[in-house]
Amino acid sequence: MKRKLRMGMVGGGLTSFIGPVHRKAAGIDGEIELVCGAFSIIPGESKETGEALYLNPDRVYETYQEMFEKEKSLPPDQRIDFVSVVTPNHVHFGPSQMALESGFHVLVEKPIAFSLAEAKTLEKTVNKTGLLLGLTHTYTGYPLVKEARKMVADGAFGKIRKIYVEYPQGWLSTLLEKTGNMQASWRTDPKQSGMGGAIGDIGTHAANLAEYITGLRITEICAMLNTVVKGRHLDDDSSMLLRFDNGASGVLMATQVAAGEENNLNIRVYGEKGGLEWKQEEPNTMILKWLDKPKEIIRAGQKYLSDEAKSFTRTPAGHPEGYLEAFANIYRSFSRALRDYKPGKKLNIAKYDFPDVADGVRGMNFVQTVVKSANSNRKWTTLK
Amino acid sequence: MKRKLRMGMVGGGLTSFIGPVHRKAAGIDGEIELVCGAFSIIPGESKETGEALYLNPDRVYETYQEMFEKEKSLPPDQRIDFVSVVTPNHVHFGPSQMALESGFHVLVEKPIAFSLAEAKTLEKTVNKTGLLLGLTHTYTGYPLVKEARKMVADGAFGKIRKIYVEYPQGWLSTLLEKTGNMQASWRTDPKQSGMGGAIGDIGTHAANLAEYITGLRITEICAMLNTVVKGRHLDDDSSMLLRFDNGASGVLMATQVAAGEENNLNIRVYGEKGGLEWKQEEPNTMILKWLDKPKEIIRAGQKYLSDEAKSFTRTPAGHPEGYLEAFANIYRSFSRALRDYKPGKKLNIAKYDFPDVADGVRGMNFVQTVVKSANSNRKWTTLK
Amino acid sequence: MKRKLRMGMVGGGLTSFIGPVHRKAAGIDGEIELVCGAFSIIPGESKETGEALYLNPDRVYETYQEMFEKEKSLPPDQRIDFVSVVTPNHVHFGPSQMALESGFHVLVEKPIAFSLAEAKTLEKTVNKTGLLLGLTHTYTGYPLVKEARKMVADGAFGKIRKIYVEYPQGWLSTLLEKTGNMQASWRTDPKQSGMGGAIGDIGTHAANLAEYITGLRITEICAMLNTVVKGRHLDDDSSMLLRFDNGASGVLMATQVAAGEENNLNIRVYGEKGGLEWKQEEPNTMILKWLDKPKEIIRAGQKYLSDEAKSFTRTPAGHPEGYLEAFANIYRSFSRALRDYKPGKKLNIAKYDFPDVADGVRGMNFVQTVVKSANSNRKWTTLK
Amino acid sequence: MKRKLRMGMVGGGLTSFIGPVHRKAAGIDGEIELVCGAFSIIPGESKETGEALYLNPDRVYETYQEMFEKEKSLPPDQRIDFVSVVTPNHVHFGPSQMALESGFHVLVEKPIAFSLAEAKTLEKTVNKTGLLLGLTHTYTGYPLVKEARKMVADGAFGKIRKIYVEYPQGWLSTLLEKTGNMQASWRTDPKQSGMGGAIGDIGTHAANLAEYITGLRITEICAMLNTVVKGRHLDDDSSMLLRFDNGASGVLMATQVAAGEENNLNIRVYGEKGGLEWKQEEPNTMILKWLDKPKEIIRAGQKYLSDEAKSFTRTPAGHPEGYLEAFANIYRSFSRALRDYKPGKKLNIAKYDFPDVADGVRGMNFVQTVVKSANSNRKWTTLK
Repeated sequence: MKRKLRMGMVGGGLTSFIGPVHRKAAGIDGEIELVCGAFSIIPGESKETGEALYLNPDRVYETYQEMFEKEKSLPPDQRIDFVSVVTPNHVHFGPSQMALESGFHVLVEKPIAFSLAEAKTLEKTVNKTGLLLGLTHTYTGYPLVKEARKMVADGAFGKIRKIYVEYPQGWLSTLLEKTGNMQASWRTDPKQSGMGGAIGDIGTHAANLAEYITGLRITEICAMLNTVVKGRHLDDDSSMLLRFDNGASGVLMATQVAAGEENNLNIRVYGEKGGLEWKQEEPNTMILKWLDKPKEIIRAGQKYLSDEAKSFTRTPAGHPEGYLEAFANIYRSFSRALRDYKPGKKLNIAKYDFPDVADGVRGMNFVQTVVKSANSNRKWTTLK
Repeated sequence: MKRKLRMGMVGGGLTSFIGPVHRKAAGIDGEIELVCGAFSIIPGESKETGEALYLNPDRVYETYQEMFEKEKSLPPDQRIDFVSVVTPNHVHFGPSQMALESGFHVLVEKPIAFSLAEAKTLEKTVNKTGLLLGLTHTYTGYPLVKEARKMVADGAFGKIRKIYVEYPQGWLSTLLEKTGNMQASWRTDPKQSGMGGAIGDIGTHAANLAEYITGLRITEICAMLNTVVKGRHLDDDSSMLLRFDNGASGVLMATQVAAGEENNLNIRVYGEKGGLEWKQEEPNTMILKWLDKPKEIIRAGQKYLSDEAKSFTRTPAGHPEGYLEAFANIYRSFSRALRDYKPGKKLNIAKYDFPDVADGVRGMNFVQTVVKSANSNRKWTTLK
Repeated sequence: MKRKLRMGMVGGGLTSFIGPVHRKAAGIDGEIELVCGAFSIIPGESKETGEALYLNPDRVYETYQEMFEKEKSLPPDQRIDFVSVVTPNHVHFGPSQMALESGFHVLVEKPIAFSLAEAKTLEKTVNKTGLLLGLTHTYTGYPLVKEARKMVADGAFGKIRKIYVEYPQGWLSTLLEKTGNMQASWRTDPKQSGMGGAIGDIGTHAANLAEYITGLRITEICAMLNTVVKGRHLDDDSSMLLRFDNGASGVLMATQVAAGEENNLNIRVYGEKGGLEWKQEEPNTMILKWLDKPKEIIRAGQKYLSDEAKSFTRTPAGHPEGYLEAFANIYRSFSRALRDYKPGKKLNIAKYDFPDVADGVRGMNFVQTVVKSANSNRKWTTLK
Repeated sequence: MKRKLRMGMVGGGLTSFIGPVHRKAAGIDGEIELVCGAFSIIPGESKETGEALYLNPDRVYETYQEMFEKEKSLPPDQRIDFVSVVTPNHVHFGPSQMALESGFHVLVEKPIAFSLAEAKTLEKTVNKTGLLLGLTHTYTGYPLVKEARKMVADGAFGKIRKIYVEYPQGWLSTLLEKTGNMQASWRTDPKQSGMGGAIGDIGTHAANLAEYITGLRITEICAMLNTVVKGRHLDDDSSMLLRFDNGASGVLMATQVAAGEENNLNIRVYGEKGGLEWKQEEPNTMILKWLDKPKEIIRAGQKYLSDEAKSFTRTPAGHPEGYLEAFANIYRSFSRALRDYKPGKKLNIAKYDFPDVADGVRGMNFVQTVVKSANSNRKWTTLK
């Protein structure tokens, strides 16, 4: 298939948090192009979003139902290949199910659905249609998470004995949902979020990460759920003891009232010979611990990693995942200047904040002066 | 301009290191589309690259001269807006100069040219044409570098007194250029790299960062350049004392023989009241130091940052720059599966490594079991 | 009392681990001199130890019984002021009890005794005689632990909501007790160590630290104890959910099979407005976390600390405090109480801030409740 | 000699900073007892100090001259073995010289004297009398500094190429000497401190550490000294380029105006195969860096360390070493030499591993050369 894959999107209007994240992520590799969407149920917002994204107005829809109907009827060389579903939790099921039934693959934001029943229905539909359904358990996408999984599978740590996985956040330490914060509102509303608050929103990421890295399955749970902030309608705090299918045990905590924490998902796994520690907030570093030798610091992108981990890195060692975004900032600033550019009009480059020709001359001047200084017996050489 | 900006590229063939970085960075925000390129001087490689990038074969050129000729003659609603130049150092000047003379804006990989003379010629052409020329001094693109610059400008640290900037790498600790490593070869070759080795390749980044953050200008330099590895033709190590235009002083080191270092660009700035410390390898964290109160840890994306810094972040606090790439990994894995998909054929999802419907069901099951356990007086509840 | 305090020691022969630690800690401040001892039950070892310590041979005894008899009969200006008991757990009670009955104060290594019954007997004796008994819960001796306690008490974080305390070690990841390692042997032997393995040895420190810092009392426990290494006779791993008397909840883990961990006691406390994080392995640094402002790094010895914290530092900021100094803080607090001691007068122990007999009882009670909970199918077991 | 060593002290009155540090360090190992002192030139303060230290009033003196006279005349089984000199820099020479001439060994706080001339006179006296003189270059007392030195000597990193050593402090960022701060006053007063400010006070430690760890000798220096704070009478800031006797080069910075820094002495050494990084503020951790494998974290007290490093640890791994213990290591090494001391016999100081008179001379020479270089327009000044 010598062309980009064509993607449609459900949800992700201009005020969305996760929609732009999906779009930017889909754009990085140049393999996917967004060609249509039903971005919002707020009248007009879908259209406005489509314009901001430079889409063909004919393919910006008001509802996902309309979108699937119309797209189905387009010729194969135009219609979408798959749908990205980025709506709130209680609207994951509808578009995912209809997309599959319309013959489109689906990539849906986590959690897959509002209830276990919905999830099982989707599973049946996937099995029936044979189409693909992907789920953005994002944290398993990090290169060092791949390395961790590989090391455990290869027996680097021996039999796994203990797993500690944590997901502390602090942003719901106050009754934020009563202040008009939309992210807080739907996440603490049982009708939109489902039966779990913190446990559904972030606890599932922690559980998924623990099972993904270790290849083990949780078999028994001893849980405490708390609603710490008065007036809240769902749990905002959880801790639990865990047992795994190989006899290992562990602890999982997921809380949104750990004041001052950002998004500190982290995991520690210990086996007979050693263990590992990984923190999402500094995802390019993993600590390995060993019974009788020094701890090791392994870093994304390094030659000593497995081919699996390497294949998930886009930049060389030392250029953190994030380097691309710094790079993109320069492209973006440059683009903005370009859009303001008019022949004969002098732009104020400083306003756009990208390095320009004067910086280039400065750099060459610097190198030349350094070489001059290095070759000189005088202590100081003037840089002009 | 209600459309994406159209970009052409010079250099960046399939074996290039920095070409894909530019393309991915340009792709993140959905503001730019690559429409043409002259990717390589190796016969056939430009064509092959164009195919891999899904370009229209008519707009894949063998030379940049051909590209500018042809693009110039296209109607305005088709031809490129700007050119991205990602060739080795000694081929920065040619395409940049010709692009400007052909009426195209330019974004060129650093350093701007091979010599100070070339750089000054470009400067004249920019001034004459009034077109834009951007330069990828990437490290100034990080959100916390913006914050650092803002804090210094706002006088948060008082008058600046000391600046220490370092760029240690270790990858040239051996005579790598004699082993067929292309990155090492051209960087240590005076004919391709220019008069500076380490000082030109990375020292310029360090100098640029120091001047960018502090708003000060280096006025005097006392430098030592070394060629530590025998048989090398350019410096691979440098240290220098610096004086700045406000009376401050400092130290700059840039070395490629600090064995075991990756890409550890870092800077410390001290003023009358306090200072800052930032390291490129963990770019989402900056340490502030104060005379009479505790050090502070500031993090990209946080509410307490300046609007300037915030405007350069794409993800919320705690989701490191890099989160987007983890996200993109899931999109990429999913895309790969999609390309292999054939109706009626069962794909082995595990091979592609993306979360699928079974993970979704698992997650819902987890939440339900946790809630059940939390509501139960029994210690353990089975997770099926 | 214009002279050094005179100390006798029970246990702490030449091969002892903790004996020398006590002696060094006692020696730091120049307030205490060791004048006699019954260092070992191995024939000749006591004598040999006394010689190595430059003691008067007349005051080196073969048994503690002999020591107390003889010392009692010396004139007041020669005989010891107090006894340091540094024997294995099962020999804490005997000498402590006899010392008190002989009219000597006692400083005893933790845990205070082998069983709760013994501990209570000691408590009675202390109450009856009015003599002092100190206990080396060393980790509360660190300056930043004092600061943490002060900040919580002052309401810096608002009402406390969550407490996570951990004590992971890895040294018992193998069946070390079968290799002749003496430290491993007695600690994993129920006859010498008591009913708790990891939980008695280190879990007590974790619980003590959590209560010390927060000023809260653990009220309910939901525990899991494991013997991970086959062939071991006591638990080597524990995790538990906790509830505190103000409604806060938490998690405690203490394990000796976290391969690659040294002695990584650490605690995180979160309240309504922020929280703190402290790690014993880097004890001079504490991280403060806040709802709406940057994290802060506070460091031992700094001017901005409370007078309480400052009074426990011997070296200026940047000169790290050591473990021995934390140890010595307890000796010093104990010494100060001793100097204020007058027969028949009741001292306010809290004022001197050293762990005393009540803490000893508390620890035994804690262990017993944990074991009870571990053996129970009920979720919650009350700690009284 | 089956008794404790008897120590006298010159300086170290009740308001002294470094006096108590010496006394505590001397007290840790139970090898030394303080028996006399001339603690202050302030009338009455010596007496008061002696009382606080429980000394025999007969052996508390008003002047060091009196002390040496009287002590000399005491019978051998009573008089002191050695003197600890902890006065300000300009009073190091007098008591040290007189002590030696009176037949007493000396342990003197760094720097050894006020001027190079004084230092050389002391060297002569040491040579003439054959007595021992020790110097507290404390930072070489840390266990991991010993390990670093051993690894370099064993060739673990191959030939050493680059050495970066830094000593940033921030406490002199303001004109503290005008506020009555005694530590600031004498350190910034050329009459008490000597010719070097920051460079004498802390730069000497940095240089000593670099030479100690690498076993190399600094041969050439290119220095910049600044007096950053207006009204100060000595340098408060320094940076310099260095060359070493094996062809390696490096950078040394020592500054007291890096606002917000505590006492952040740190060193990085790179050789052909890898390098090391150590920071005094977290002295129990050292990072090893390698060309083609993960970084390693080594920790004080661990089994995998060399016997040399282990022998300088008093506590097991995970129980952090403190500054006092590093201090005490020098006292202990010195004590061991003293015990081997026999009149007329030449000791091999290197075997005992404590800084001696030659190091003192070295330090003064270093300072002088730095000042010379700073005042010179030539790039390089030779250090002999």
